[in-house]
Amino acid sequence: MKNYAIGIDLGGTKIEVAIVDSDGQIVDSARTPTGNGRDADAVISKIAGLVKQLTEKHKDEKVIAAGIGIAGQVESNSGIVKYAPNLEWHNVKLCEELSGQLNLPVTVNNDVKAAMYGEWKFGAGKGCSDLVCVFVGTGIGGGIVSNGEIMHGYHNTAGEVGHMTIDLHGPVCHCGNRGCFEALAGGWAIERDAREAVQANKDSGNLLLELANGDVEKISGEVIATALKEGNALATSIMDKVAEALVAGTTSIVNAIGPQKLILGGGIMEGMPQLIKHIEEGVKKFALKAATASLEVVPAALHNKAGVIGAAMMSLTHFEKINHNK
Amino acid sequence: MKNYAIGIDLGGTKIEVAIVDSDGQIVDSARTPTGNGRDADAVISKIAGLVKQLTEKHKDEKVIAAGIGIAGQVESNSGIVKYAPNLEWHNVKLCEELSGQLNLPVTVNNDVKAAMYGEWKFGAGKGCSDLVCVFVGTGIGGGIVSNGEIMHGYHNTAGEVGHMTIDLHGPVCHCGNRGCFEALAGGWAIERDAREAVQANKDSGNLLLELANGDVEKISGEVIATALKEGNALATSIMDKVAEALVAGTTSIVNAIGPQKLILGGGIMEGMPQLIKHIEEGVKKFALKAATASLEVVPAALHNKAGVIGAAMMSLTHFEKINHNK
Repeated sequence: MKNYAIGIDLGGTKIEVAIVDSDGQIVDSARTPTGNGRDADAVISKIAGLVKQLTEKHKDEKVIAAGIGIAGQVESNSGIVKYAPNLEWHNVKLCEELSGQLNLPVTVNNDVKAAMYGEWKFGAGKGCSDLVCVFVGTGIGGGIVSNGEIMHGYHNTAGEVGHMTIDLHGPVCHCGNRGCFEALAGGWAIERDAREAVQANKDSGNLLLELANGDVEKISGEVIATALKEGNALATSIMDKVAEALVAGTTSIVNAIGPQKLILGGGIMEGMPQLIKHIEEGVKKFALKAATASLEVVPAALHNKAGVIGAAMMSLTHFEKINHNK
Repeated sequence: MKNYAIGIDLGGTKIEVAIVDSDGQIVDSARTPTGNGRDADAVISKIAGLVKQLTEKHKDEKVIAAGIGIAGQVESNSGIVKYAPNLEWHNVKLCEELSGQLNLPVTVNNDVKAAMYGEWKFGAGKGCSDLVCVFVGTGIGGGIVSNGEIMHGYHNTAGEVGHMTIDLHGPVCHCGNRGCFEALAGGWAIERDAREAVQANKDSGNLLLELANGDVEKISGEVIATALKEGNALATSIMDKVAEALVAGTTSIVNAIGPQKLILGGGIMEGMPQLIKHIEEGVKKFALKAATASLEVVPAALHNKAGVIGAAMMSLTHFEKINHNK
């Protein structure tokens, strides 16, 4: 009989929950807005309610565990969320609380690590023992698999590739440092560049402003992608700079880590998939020849489901191993 | 009875050979100029001769293996040197040749990886399971230990931290890319900056030129270090920029890899040890707080012996394991 696990993707704006089977296939899923994220108890109860609705609906599936991915810093053994900036959580005992309410064993991981695990085991990285995932969304996150093992780092922070410095005198990043990869190529940086350019020159920014209904603050990644498709000069020049930064950042990663596969995902990559070919060509041109001999640069395969699938499978694998060793 | 191994450090200018005991202690060592490096047969015979002199002298020590570290790209299983730029070697069967001449089993590794192994097992990284070594010499090399294992990468190139991009519009690197860590903070880049500054302004470059006996091409790291000690303004301004680049590069490494220890070695660090404190303060200021919670930034402990000790111990460990499994 197959085992099943619950996967939970907890973000600042929405909660997604899914029942996943041991082959990484989603049986059913549900989502709801996060609401007031700061109220940890309310968020945890909301998650538990959503999970119970799903498990009630699928009584025949044997759910043995639940896994959650959260945008923040997680203490690996305790499952305590040390800090989640989007939700303004500090030291929330997420594992203990959720496990109690669900009456299931629970694993808690960083959301990017969960998504990377999903891509590794069931997506673009299947069967690969040395890979790096780079997710370019609002920010840039990543994960590293080396010699068949997830790289956690001593402080459980390994894979924070969005905060690799690629322009030491570059723009200030949200982290306080300068010239981080995500401060040049993350979604928030692209929007910043577009808004600044439009404010500096309303003529060249005409189309972007129009697509944003005349509100500079509404110039989003989607707006820029639309203008780009129409061949708009300003959008093209902004994205040329972003593409250059993406090549520099991924080249840096390939040189330092030496993966077999570089997997590229996240909202920006999904919205502008032509970037992937550009990055592949750039990395193969600029990275060390020895490091790119048989490097594959590929798009992520699980799209916005990588998080729930990965979180579910991390917990399923973890608790199946524990049960097996009993 | 103790086992011993031969460690060999093969560089572009000199060959160093040592007998090392299983505690990582050097019993005796010898060195000779590399001579015409391009003649691989001659270099290998020279190494074999030097090793035989040492083993003759220490007949009572049971030497069970030899390990060599070479500046270049090594195929891990075969011990073939794919490419060694300093020696202009391509596809040299170093393991096979040397093993035949020495009548000993031989391991071949990249020299930086060997030095990192030495520091990890017998130097500043003893007992640590997550560390990064950064060696700042003429270039910048490095090595990564993650979760108690050396990180090799799929192409055996992991740890090439000297070619992480830290200034995407920066100076051209020897590798062909722009703004690599070593193109801003490696010994060759420091000399380039000093020579350019002296040529641009002979007045401010007066002391540097004098210390180099009036020959711009002789402005070396030692010359700059001497001028720095005398409080020379140009040397200070050059090294301020280098220090800034060292902070950016190591911050990038700490964010991406998340080690417990950052070990700093190499000629530049040995010559200007005050840089280590500066890097520690910079990394703790600019890297992610979660990644530096208990990070230690420490100087390498084995100095220019890390290479021979590491190469010897990699072979000793490798062949003891094989013998044990027989």
